[in-house]
Formats: sequence, structure tokens, C-alpha cells
Amino acid sequence: MNINIINGPNLNLLGKREPEKYGKISFDDFLESLRKRYPSVNFEYFHSNVEGEIINEIHRIGFNSDGIILNAGGYTHTSVAIADAVAAIKAPVIEVHITNILAREEFRRTSLLARSCKGTISGFGLDSYRLAVEAFILGKENQ
Amino acid sequence: MNINIINGPNLNLLGKREPEKYGKISFDDFLESLRKRYPSVNFEYFHSNVEGEIINEIHRIGFNSDGIILNAGGYTHTSVAIADAVAAIKAPVIEVHITNILAREEFRRTSLLARSCKGTISGFGLDSYRLAVEAFILGKENQ
Amino acid sequence: MNINIINGPNLNLLGKREPEKYGKISFDDFLESLRKRYPSVNFEYFHSNVEGEIINEIHRIGFNSDGIILNAGGYTHTSVAIADAVAAIKAPVIEVHITNILAREEFRRTSLLARSCKGTISGFGLDSYRLAVEAFILGKENQ
Amino acid sequence: MNINIINGPNLNLLGKREPEKYGKISFDDFLESLRKRYPSVNFEYFHSNVEGEIINEIHRIGFNSDGIILNAGGYTHTSVAIADAVAAIKAPVIEVHITNILAREEFRRTSLLARSCKGTISGFGLDSYRLAVEAFILGKENQ
Amino acid sequence: MNINIINGPNLNLLGKREPEKYGKISFDDFLESLRKRYPSVNFEYFHSNVEGEIINEIHRIGFNSDGIILNAGGYTHTSVAIADAVAAIKAPVIEVHITNILAREEFRRTSLLARSCKGTISGFGLDSYRLAVEAFILGKENQ
Amino acid sequence: MNINIINGPNLNLLGKREPEKYGKISFDDFLESLRKRYPSVNFEYFHSNVEGEIINEIHRIGFNSDGIILNAGGYTHTSVAIADAVAAIKAPVIEVHITNILAREEFRRTSLLARSCKGTISGFGLDSYRLAVEAFILGKENQ
Amino acid sequence: MNINIINGPNLNLLGKREPEKYGKISFDDFLESLRKRYPSVNFEYFHSNVEGEIINEIHRIGFNSDGIILNAGGYTHTSVAIADAVAAIKAPVIEVHITNILAREEFRRTSLLARSCKGTISGFGLDSYRLAVEAFILGKENQ
Amino acid sequence: MNINIINGPNLNLLGKREPEKYGKISFDDFLESLRKRYPSVNFEYFHSNVEGEIINEIHRIGFNSDGIILNAGGYTHTSVAIADAVAAIKAPVIEVHITNILAREEFRRTSLLARSCKGTISGFGLDSYRLAVEAFILGKENQ
Amino acid sequence: MNINIINGPNLNLLGKREPEKYGKISFDDFLESLRKRYPSVNFEYFHSNVEGEIINEIHRIGFNSDGIILNAGGYTHTSVAIADAVAAIKAPVIEVHITNILAREEFRRTSLLARSCKGTISGFGLDSYRLAVEAFILGKENQ
Amino acid sequence: MNINIINGPNLNLLGKREPEKYGKISFDDFLESLRKRYPSVNFEYFHSNVEGEIINEIHRIGFNSDGIILNAGGYTHTSVAIADAVAAIKAPVIEVHITNILAREEFRRTSLLARSCKGTISGFGLDSYRLAVEAFILGKENQ
Amino acid sequence: MNINIINGPNLNLLGKREPEKYGKISFDDFLESLRKRYPSVNFEYFHSNVEGEIINEIHRIGFNSDGIILNAGGYTHTSVAIADAVAAIKAPVIEVHITNILAREEFRRTSLLARSCKGTISGFGLDSYRLAVEAFILGKENQ
Amino acid sequence: MNINIINGPNLNLLGKREPEKYGKISFDDFLESLRKRYPSVNFEYFHSNVEGEIINEIHRIGFNSDGIILNAGGYTHTSVAIADAVAAIKAPVIEVHITNILAREEFRRTSLLARSCKGTISGFGLDSYRLAVEAFILGKENQ
Repeated sequence: MNINIINGPNLNLLGKREPEKYGKISFDDFLESLRKRYPSVNFEYFHSNVEGEIINEIHRIGFNSDGIILNAGGYTHTSVAIADAVAAIKAPVIEVHITNILAREEFRRTSLLARSCKGTISGFGLDSYRLAVEAFILGKENQ
Repeated sequence: MNINIINGPNLNLLGKREPEKYGKISFDDFLESLRKRYPSVNFEYFHSNVEGEIINEIHRIGFNSDGIILNAGGYTHTSVAIADAVAAIKAPVIEVHITNILAREEFRRTSLLARSCKGTISGFGLDSYRLAVEAFILGKENQ
Repeated sequence: MNINIINGPNLNLLGKREPEKYGKISFDDFLESLRKRYPSVNFEYFHSNVEGEIINEIHRIGFNSDGIILNAGGYTHTSVAIADAVAAIKAPVIEVHITNILAREEFRRTSLLARSCKGTISGFGLDSYRLAVEAFILGKENQ
Repeated sequence: MNINIINGPNLNLLGKREPEKYGKISFDDFLESLRKRYPSVNFEYFHSNVEGEIINEIHRIGFNSDGIILNAGGYTHTSVAIADAVAAIKAPVIEVHITNILAREEFRRTSLLARSCKGTISGFGLDSYRLAVEAFILGKENQ
Repeated sequence: MNINIINGPNLNLLGKREPEKYGKISFDDFLESLRKRYPSVNFEYFHSNVEGEIINEIHRIGFNSDGIILNAGGYTHTSVAIADAVAAIKAPVIEVHITNILAREEFRRTSLLARSCKGTISGFGLDSYRLAVEAFILGKENQ
Repeated sequence: MNINIINGPNLNLLGKREPEKYGKISFDDFLESLRKRYPSVNFEYFHSNVEGEIINEIHRIGFNSDGIILNAGGYTHTSVAIADAVAAIKAPVIEVHITNILAREEFRRTSLLARSCKGTISGFGLDSYRLAVEAFILGKENQ
Repeated sequence: MNINIINGPNLNLLGKREPEKYGKISFDDFLESLRKRYPSVNFEYFHSNVEGEIINEIHRIGFNSDGIILNAGGYTHTSVAIADAVAAIKAPVIEVHITNILAREEFRRTSLLARSCKGTISGFGLDSYRLAVEAFILGKENQ
Repeated sequence: MNINIINGPNLNLLGKREPEKYGKISFDDFLESLRKRYPSVNFEYFHSNVEGEIINEIHRIGFNSDGIILNAGGYTHTSVAIADAVAAIKAPVIEVHITNILAREEFRRTSLLARSCKGTISGFGLDSYRLAVEAFILGKENQ
Repeated sequence: MNINIINGPNLNLLGKREPEKYGKISFDDFLESLRKRYPSVNFEYFHSNVEGEIINEIHRIGFNSDGIILNAGGYTHTSVAIADAVAAIKAPVIEVHITNILAREEFRRTSLLARSCKGTISGFGLDSYRLAVEAFILGKENQ
Repeated sequence: MNINIINGPNLNLLGKREPEKYGKISFDDFLESLRKRYPSVNFEYFHSNVEGEIINEIHRIGFNSDGIILNAGGYTHTSVAIADAVAAIKAPVIEVHITNILAREEFRRTSLLARSCKGTISGFGLDSYRLAVEAFILGKENQ
Repeated sequence: MNINIINGPNLNLLGKREPEKYGKISFDDFLESLRKRYPSVNFEYFHSNVEGEIINEIHRIGFNSDGIILNAGGYTHTSVAIADAVAAIKAPVIEVHITNILAREEFRRTSLLARSCKGTISGFGLDSYRLAVEAFILGKENQ
Repeated sequence: MNINIINGPNLNLLGKREPEKYGKISFDDFLESLRKRYPSVNFEYFHSNVEGEIINEIHRIGFNSDGIILNAGGYTHTSVAIADAVAAIKAPVIEVHITNILAREEFRRTSLLARSCKGTISGFGLDSYRLAVEAFILGKENQ
């Protein structure tokens, strides 16, 4: 199974940025642990702070990937364009968030992306990504 | 590990109610499969259509349970009282939804409960419950 | 024809509560007159002040009744859960109100229930129930 | 008993316009069936697409009619002027709608007219008019 | 001086409609008293319940009249089209209201017309019209 | 007849402040011309930039004056307290504005005062005050 | 004097729930101290987490009690149905809150109940109940 | 090809009304130039300031015309009734505006009509009509 | 114990102003009765209609008083500045209202002050002040 | 004549993305047909999914181009920055949309760009671009 | 250069009021340091808690001062009257705030004054005043 | 002292774009003058029209710079992602604007960035940058 993880703005600072809110380990370290945990899954990772490059990546992989895990960071709440990209492709997309966006500031309590995603996992720290992998595995099992 | 599942209004109709949206199997059948999948977990199940009885149950188990999986159905969007109950107890609560509430009608795109929950899993059909169990297992692993 | 009448909160006080607004006869007396007027109809009556018990009743009768007349009182404007119950069943539901909810306080001018109901009759005092019975009879005639 | 029926914009297209939503028979045919059903009622019918002509008609009959059945179509949601006309006359007015306005697009879920009407019947197709006649008959009976 | 008075919907019912709110004398009687009081003014009077006919009249007189007194009734709050007509002509327009619109129901507390009018006089009963005449006389004096 | 004129904040700058919007003559000069025009009226004038002093003055004269002409300037849109003062007294109050407040910035298009005033005259420059005097004279005539 | 105290959702957790916000003593202990302080008052106490059972209790006692002290907890902000129950009965009702609801989260700053209550006491911890008793005593004194 | 042009309120003043905003030539002159430019198109022209007459015309031609160019003027933003008429007919309708409505006052930035129209052309002066003709020609070409 | 009572705009009219809403006795008479009832309390009284003078008084006494009873009248709903003053001082402040502000016009249902006050007592007529004194006494007892 | 076409996010997927909504041919094929149709026009084409690169391109060509056809896709509704770029340049810009944005989801019914554009063409599929070319040609003709 | 500093409500408490938010030194001490730093500037200082007295001062100095530094405190967000005063005078006004108003509670994130001010400096503690002085000096340099 | 200046979209057009609003000199020329004025400060300059590149730059310098002057242009009002970047770093950030954003169009009167910035300077033309430098110097002085 090929799973693509796409991280949006500021997620490259994980481990460095407000660690009491976002945790202390970097995404690279986490990714390594993820690969160990799921040896049969082929993970491809992409990060960009640029909204349009995230769209480019969604286009590039969106017709072949078995599943996309998308954490669009701050663009979650403002980007009609990424939402349109998700709607335009074939691969299923799961939206993840490290913190629970429904429990934060007013402007973070909506997701423009959700409408085109298979599901949303929000608030479990980096485990949100792990749970998204489980969701793809369960989805496959159900078929 | 003791996990409590609490289901709110109309979830007793699962398998019977709008199956194209909510799936075809009953919650009882699903519960059995869940118990088989996680033999080391002790699941306790509670359902009520009555808001206040859900609060009663949260109070009853909230200081002893290892984790509560809560699908408050329609009360998710309107019940300050259940949200207060969740905030009042010690056990961690994960909010789950069968459909992706962020992608449905305007009035379903908020959760009054989220603010007091550990996290939210929304949109994976009955797998939302499975993923919540995984989340509690991962949470334990992280300690 | 089996018709179920379900009354929500405070409607048990009819005849006693603000009679200049809600009229002077009790619902029991009215029900008797209704049964006399429509001898061929089998009326079953349910009242509860508890939101969840109304849902229970809707579930109990909702797959067999020929028609449900529902006055959900104050829950009309706030209950996503009852609206979901109405949407989940097979029997047609007519929403009735004694006063004209569209002509009262701002917060009473909406109905969360309407979206799942066959129709709404509002403002005719207890005649709203009579008209709902007529509507079910007409509906049968039209078939 | 003299009952006036006033139909507003686009209701002259009944039977022709979106039949899956508004039904297949014309209002003229329906009117004939109504007259047959209630031989003791004298029906007068008026239709106009012009807001001000509806007001003219309300003025003309409003101090003599025994009851007015008003379907103001799209003006229901926008016309302060028709609402004022209804408030200015003596005859009781019942507001009817073929579809259930409380269950349609956001902008159709209000009625500026309701505040001055005796009651509202909404969602029963052409039966909404029949039920309004019944309501006037019941109202007379109650005196 | 030629002054045109244009009255909108329901103002033809003056003296007949809710007299405790709008007064007891008809507009015709009032007009006569106005002509007596201001013998040097040539009054032309127009009434219509039809929005578009009010626009027609504004167009017809709007490039020649010395002053227009406009009471657009319920259209005051909803008619972009009349507001555009007032903006399109040369004659100065004074907006009058019998009751004080800023002190009534929420939806009456705005005027789409005001933006194109010379001024607004609101709340003095039929004296609002007299004061508008005075305003035109004062305006002439000031030149 | 005793008429009190009360001017609120910044109206002492008349003639000096944005003359293209508010005119070129000072209020003192205008007051003199007003006294000449209405020799039988006894005018008392009060100005303050302080909200509470305006309230004090309304209290002082409000149980004896034959009529108050109130231009509360910027407080028109924000002062619940002045509105309460106007509601508390016996003398009739006419609200005046030099510019047409219904045609200016959004935040100026409401008047908290109107609800307790006899009427509003808005947009006639200093003639708004003259028209208010006329209104009191007409009011007396009507008795 | 018979005074009824009705407590709504989560108030049974007093002393146990977020003690830094709601205090450390249980309601039972408090009730005992209240009875000692006011030996001539006969206190009856009712608690339920169920909205409809609170309505039942209000109905049961509402035509005989000398005074009801109502803390509806989270239902304060959402329950049209309890508000209707309070409006339907004869006994005077005082609304109390342990914390000052006007000073908390946005959604807690309104009370649907207040419109039918004699008064509101909010923010004094359990003393809010004591002050409500004082209010009933003062009310009796004033007669 | 038969194309119907329908103009709404105030468009009869073209060339006369605020020429800096709406241009200097009358619609009659423009229509002549249009007929010259497209000799193979049969243009029928209708103008009314009356909302209901526009609806009448839409009904009259709406089941036969090859295409309708509709500039509903101020009714664009307020008329549910015209929008319903457009939805009720068979002929394709193109909405045109002389100025760019999306770039003007807040209340002009919406179109109730758009939802039932084939497309919208806004902001090109009278060329908006020419472009609508081109659109119908292109549409035919595409078939 | 030193208690300061601060009354805001229009409260000097008590007994004179709308007595059916605010009662018939003046505040001076009430104050005398209060002093008799609580001989051990030293009451200091201040009234002003001027927002800024209320702030001055809050500053003057705010670091020494044992408790302030504040009825800011109409400023309750509009004054950020008084709210800031209350937040800036050390003495506890209780907000009182004669009528129940949560049950009146929309614009009176908020309090900018509450956020910095110890508690709010609203709706008991002049007894609201008595209850505030009781609240300070109870507060002292609790220490 | 030099015309620049700028396409924003997801428009590179044309022909591939939701073909029932956006059509089946790719933009490259369309562009070729456009060049054939207008041999005397020199078309330059730019596409980017990156908001800032669209701004760069607008800057690069904005002081020399004879006309820009801009379809900013999802950025239409969210980008103050592109709107500012359009306002900053000299070349006229026509905004085009394949679907009719005024007839889609709420969040698509506004355009931040319109305020700085010459006009908007919306809803004609790829013909929207053709009509924009016609608009530039007509504009030149008019000079 | 003559610079006037005007401080509004509660700023007299500086050093005493919530020092963790507003700093520990009094405004008098700060003023002294300011005079030392800019010996060539003649500073005049005015403070009042009364909205109208601030207006009086703005009027008194507004036609002669070289620059006004205005910190209107809580009136910033509510005073149309002070905003009108600033608009009415000739002297340039710079609005300053000790804390960053755009980063505080919702109701503090607007300034009614900004529209008439030269600029706004917000969030630098007492340095906001120093920067305003620098701004006037730079402004003079630029001439 | 190392100060980084980051300019967002369209600021590269300074001197060229709407000079009456944004001034006539280019940012490069201004930067040179700034370096001359503050020889002891080491200025590093970055401009991009791309939201994500601004984030990249904030990340790159944000843990070492002594101070960042950020003018995010149109992204100020829409970018949650840049706001998150500012919150994630260690260097203090001052937000500057050439025009006074609080005094412009409604959608420009908010700043998503302010909440994470040290302060905001708005409306002084290019002097806003100079004042930001002064602010950093003052800030250092205060330590």
C-alpha cells in the first residue's frame, strides 16, 4: 500500500515550535517510527509552506496514491483552492490535525477541506497520523 | 483496559436508519466484532436517547473508566449540559462520528463537546469507533 | 387508519397554562372529541416532557404507524435529535403547532423538524390537530 | 360562506412548472374539484404576478370576505407591503404553501406574512388549499 | 411651486386601517386641507400599490417637479428599484413616514431610499407631509 | 410656548467644522434668526459635549417644557442612557439631524433615541430645527 | 414558607467537579446548612440531569410552591422547553447561578429562562442560593 | 434565432440617468445597432418597471424563445418571484448588468437570479448585451 | 463594614420615572430604610449621570472600600471604560439592576461590566440593593 | 492585440477534473482552438497553482498587456493580495469563471477581485474565455 | 513644536492598575522622562475620564496644536462623538495604545477613531507615546 | 543589531502602484535611506509575493534575528499560516502598514497577525518602517 503524507505550513517546525502544544519530536523522527511500525506500507512524504505547491503535489499523486494523509495546517481554514484540489482527484484523503481544531480559537473550528475528505482525525498529537494509517488499513480490510 | 462506549440518540437504529448514510449492520453486531478484535479490552456499552441519562452514565463511569468513546449524535451540536459533564470527569473522552460532521449541514459542523474531549474522529463509518480504540491503545503505549 | 399523536413539553398543561394563548380545554377532552369526530381512525396518544422519550416513541411506532402528528413544543426549535429521529423512520409525520410559530418570538420562527416532515400546520389552536387528521385522510384519498 | 383564494407569482404555471415539485394538475382544474367538494362555499379566485395588484385585491375584498386563502409565492419572503395589507383588513387570512417552506432554501424559511395571518399550512401540495377551507369551516363551527 | 406627493402601498386605506396607529382621516380629506393651507402651491397627487407604477410616476415627473414628497410605505425597506429611480431623477425628494420608522419593528428601521433623498421626516402622523411642504418652502427661501 | 433646544457633541463647532457637510453659519447666529422668525416662542438653548450633562438637562426641563428639540450628535447611535432619559420624562421630544443619518455610514443609520421620541427630522441642514418648531406648532394646532 | 430548589445537570457533582470553579462542598452539605439558617422555611429539593424531568417537577410544584429557586445548569442557555414551563406556572421563580454567567464563555452569556423569572442571582457561589432565599423573604415582607 | 431582451426598472432612463455610470446612448438606439450587427437574429424587446409584468413576459415567451437576455435592474437583488419564474421556464436565460454588480454597494453584490440562469455577464456597459448574444451564438455552435 | 453604592444615569429619577417599571419610592427614601436595616454598615452613596464621573468615583474609593454596589444603568451595556475601571481596582463590586436585564430588550441583555464583577443581582426592584448588602455580609462570614 | 490569459489553481486539471461540472477538453486544446478563431490576437498563457506566482505574472505583464483574462479559481473568493495586484496595474482585467459562481456554494458567491476588474463573465464553460476575448475586441471597437 | 497628549479613562491609574499588563510607572513619571528626551518639544498634557471633556479639549487645542497624541482608552471602541471631534479639527492626531488592541478581546479589536487619525501605534507599552513623538518629528522632516 | 524587514505581496510595486495612496519612492530607495539613518543597524531585506515563501523566511531567520519588521500586505487579513509562523518563532515581530488599515475597507480592518506580534504601527507611509526601527531601539534601551 502506498500512502502519501502531505504536511502544510509550519509543520516543518515540529519539535521546535510551541512544544507544549505540538509535542517535542520532529516529524522526521516520527516518520521513521511510522515506517518501522508499518513495514508493509510505502510512505512518501511531502512538506511545503506554499499553498500552491501543496496543490501541485495533490495533483501529482492524486490519481495513483492508495491514500493521502493531509495536514494542511493554517490553510485548513482558509484555502478554497486546496479543497478544490482534493475534490478533483481520485485518491481518498484523510484530514489530520495534531491539536483538536474544534476545541481551539473560533477561526480554527471550521475546515474547508472536510467536505471533500473521507474523514477527519483531530487532537491526538502525532498519533493522529498513526490513526489515519490504521483507517486506510481498516478501509482496505472492509473491501 | 476498560473502555466505555456511549451512544446517543438514534444510534440504536443503526442498520435500520438511512443505511446508505449510516451503514447496514446493527451496533450490537459491530460491538461483538469489536470485542473479538480486542480481546484484552473490556468494553462496556451504554445507549440512551435521553440527554440527561447520557449525563448520568458519564457521571457514573467518569471517575473510573480508562477511556470513553462518545457518539452523542444530535446532542453533539446542542448540548452544553453533556459538554459540562465531559469537562467534569477524570476519564479521557474521544468523540466519534460515523459521518464526517464537518462535511454535512451547517448546523452539524460544530461540536460543543470537542472543547472537553481528547480528540475527535469523524467520517469513517463504524471504523470511527475502532480508530478510537486504537487511539486509547496508542495513548497507553506513549506513557 | 392508525394515527399517532405525540405531544412534547408543557402540552400536558393545556387548559391550565396561559389559556388566553393556548385555549381553555385540556388535551384529554380534545382527544375525546377527536375520537368522536373520526370514529374510523384509531388514535394512539403519547405525551412526554422528555426529549429522549419522544425519540423512543418515534422509534417504537415509526415503522408501523399510518401517520404521526407531532407537536414537539419547545423542542421544535432546538432538537437536532428529534429531527434525526423523524428522518430515520418510515411513517409520514405532520408537524403541528397551536399558535403560529412564524408569528412569535424570533427564536420560535424556525423549525428544525420541518425538513423531515410531510407538512406543517401552525396557528389554528387545537384545530391544528384536526387539520392534520384531515391531511392524512386527504393523503389517503389521493393515492 | 364566501372564501377568496389569492395566488401570487408563478402559481399560474401550476401543472407546467417543475411538476415533480409542484404537481401535475393546473390550478383551474383543482379549483373546479374544490367547488365540487364544498358546494356550499362560494369561492372567488384571483391570481396576479404583480405584488401591488395582490394588495389591491386584498383591499377590495378584505372588509367583506369570510376568509382569504393566500399563497403569495415568492412575495411571502420579501413583501412588507403585502404583510401590511393583510394587517390592515378585517377578514381572516390563512397562508398556504404547496411545498413546505420551512424545509427549503434558507431564504424561503421565513414568512413576512405570518405575523398577520390566522395560521399557516405548508407542504401538502394542493391539499394545503383544501385544508385551509377545512380550517375556515372548523373556525365557524367553533363560534 | 409644483409639489408632487407620491404614496405607496396601503396608504389608500388611511382612516380605515389601524386608526389608532395611522389616524382617522382619509388622505383625500387631508389633501384638501393641505391645498387650503398652501394656496400658492400646486399639489399633484399619485397613489399606487404597485412598486413599478411608483417608479413610472417618479420617471414621469422627476425631471420637472419642484419637489417630490414620497411615502413609499412597505417598499421603503425593500425596494432597490425605487431607490434607483429616486437617484436617477433631478427633482429633490423628501421621504416622509406617518409613524416613526426608526422606532418600530427591526425590519422597518432602515430605509433604502434615504441615501438618494434630500431628507427624511418620520413620526408626525399626517403632519409629516405638512412639514415636508414647509421644508421645500424653506429650501426655496434659502436660495 | 416654551421650546428647549439641546445640542450634543461637536455641534458647538457649527460653521467651523467641515462646512461643506454641516453649513457655514454658527448655531448662535442661527438661534437668533430662529427667535426672530418665531417671536411668540420662548427658546431656551443648551449645549454640552458631555453625555451625562445632556441627561441632567433633560431631567431638569423634562417635566415642564412644552417641547424639546434634541440633536444628540454622535450619542444618537450609542447612548442607551440618553434614550432612557428621554423615555423617563413627560415633555415631547423631537429628534433632529443636520445631515440625513439614514444616508451616511452604516454605524450612523440607527438611532437609539427614536424609540422614545415623537418624531425624527433628518437631513435638512439647520432647517431641521425650524421644521421641528413647525412640528410643535402643528401639534398644538391639532389639539 | 415552602421553597423548592431545583438543580439541573451536573450540579450533583458539586464538590467533586472542577472545585476551583464550583467550590468544594457538596450540595447536600450546603442544603443542611441552609435548613439550619432558615428554620422557618420548608425546603424541598429536586435534582435531575434530564431536561424533561425538570419540566415535570416544575409542573408538579408550580401551582402550589411559595417560591422556586432554579439552577438549570447548561439548560439555562438552550432550553426553550424549560423556559416555557416556567412561564406556564404560578409560583415565582428565581434563577441562580454559582458562577457569573454574564462573565463566562460567549454561549453562557444568555439565559432563555430569565424572561419568565422574577429575578436572576449569578456569581456568588453557593451564596447565590442563600440570596435567593433572602429575596423570597424580602418579597414577602414587601407585601 | 429568436432572442428576447427583457429590461427591468429604470433601464428605460438609459442615456438620461447618471450617464457617467450608465453611458450616454438610449436603449432604443443601442437596440437598432444590435439588430444591424446581428441581421440573422430576431430580437424582441420588452421593458417594464413592474416586477410582476416582467414575470408575465417571462411566462409568455419562456417556453418558445431560443434565449432570453435579462437585466432585472434593482430586482436582481430582491426578487425571489422573478428567480422562480426563470426557474419555471424552458428557455435559457443569460443575466446581464451594465455595471459590475460584484464591485458595487454591498446590497448589489448578490443575485437571486443567478441560480437559475445559464450565466452572468456584468460590467461591460451595453456591450454586456452584445456579449450575451455572442454567448447564445457560441452555445448554438457548440451543439 | 464600608459599602459604597454607585448609581448611574437616570436612577436619580426613581419614584418619578415609569413607576410601574421602576417602583414608586425615591432612592433617598430607600437609602434611609437601608441604613436602618443595617445599622452596623456604613453606607456611602454616589450618583452621577456622567460616565466619567462614575469612573472617577470608582477610582477614588476602589482601593479602600469593603464593597461596591454598582448600578450603572444604561452604561451597563455600552461602557468599556467603566468596565475597565472596575477591573482596575481592588474592592469587590456587585452589579445590581432593578429590572431583570436578561429579560428586557435585546440590547439590554448583555453586561460589559459583569466580567469584572463578583456577581450580578438583577430583577428584584430595590431589593436588588438589599440582596447585594446581604451578599457582602455572607462573603465576610465565609472568610 | 496582445491578450494574456492567467489561470489559477486546479485549472490545469481541466478535462480531467469533475468533467460533468467543468467539461471534457483540456485547456491546451481549448487554447489552440482560441488561437485559430482569433488569428490576429497574440495570446500568452500562464498557469500557476501558487497565489504569489499569479501576482508575479500580473506584475510582469500588467503595465504592457492590452488585456488580461483572469480565472483565479479558488483564490477568487479569498485573495486580497491578487485583488491588490489587479488594482495596482494598468492593463484592463476581465474576470472569467467556467461555472456561474453566483449560483454555487455560499462561499463562492463573492469575488474579491471584481472590484478592480473591468467586468465579470461567469457560467459559460470555456466560452467564458471566448466571450472575454470578444469583450476586449468590442472595447477596442468602441474607442 | 507643540504636542498635546490626551489620555482617556483609567489611564490616570497607570502604575497602579494591572501592572503586569500596563507597566509599573505612572504617567507623570513617564511624562517627565519624555520632556527630558525631547527638550525642544513643548508637551501639554490633559487627562479626563469624561468622554465629553476629552471632546472639549480636542476642540480647545485642535485648531492650533502641531500634533495630538490621543489614547482614548475604552472610548476608542465606542465613541462616535470623539471620532467626530477628531474629524472636525485641523491638527493631526496619532492614536496610541499601550497594549496591542488588535490582539485583545473581540470588542477591543476595532477603533472608531482610526478613520480620522493620521496613524495608529499600538502595543509598545509607554513607548507607543515615544514613537508617536518620533512620528510627528519624522512628519515635520518630510515636509 | 540585526533587523530583518519582510515585505509581502505588491510591496515591490511601491513608487509605481497607486502613488497617491502608497507614495512615490521605491522601497529600494527607501531602504538605502534607512541604512544611512541607522548605520549601526544591520538590515536584511526580503520580499516575496508568495505566502509560503514569507513563512519560509520567517522560519529561516526567526530564531536568530534581533527583530523582524513585517508588512504582510494583503496576507495580513487572510493568512492563518503566516500568523502561526510568527507565533512559532523566538524573534520579536513588529507589524507595519503604510496606510492605516483600521481606517480602510471593512475587510482590511482586522489583522490575523497582530495576536502574535509585539506591536502594530499603521498609517505613517514609509515612516511606519522607521518607527518600527525606533521601537526596536527603544525596546533595547528599556532592558
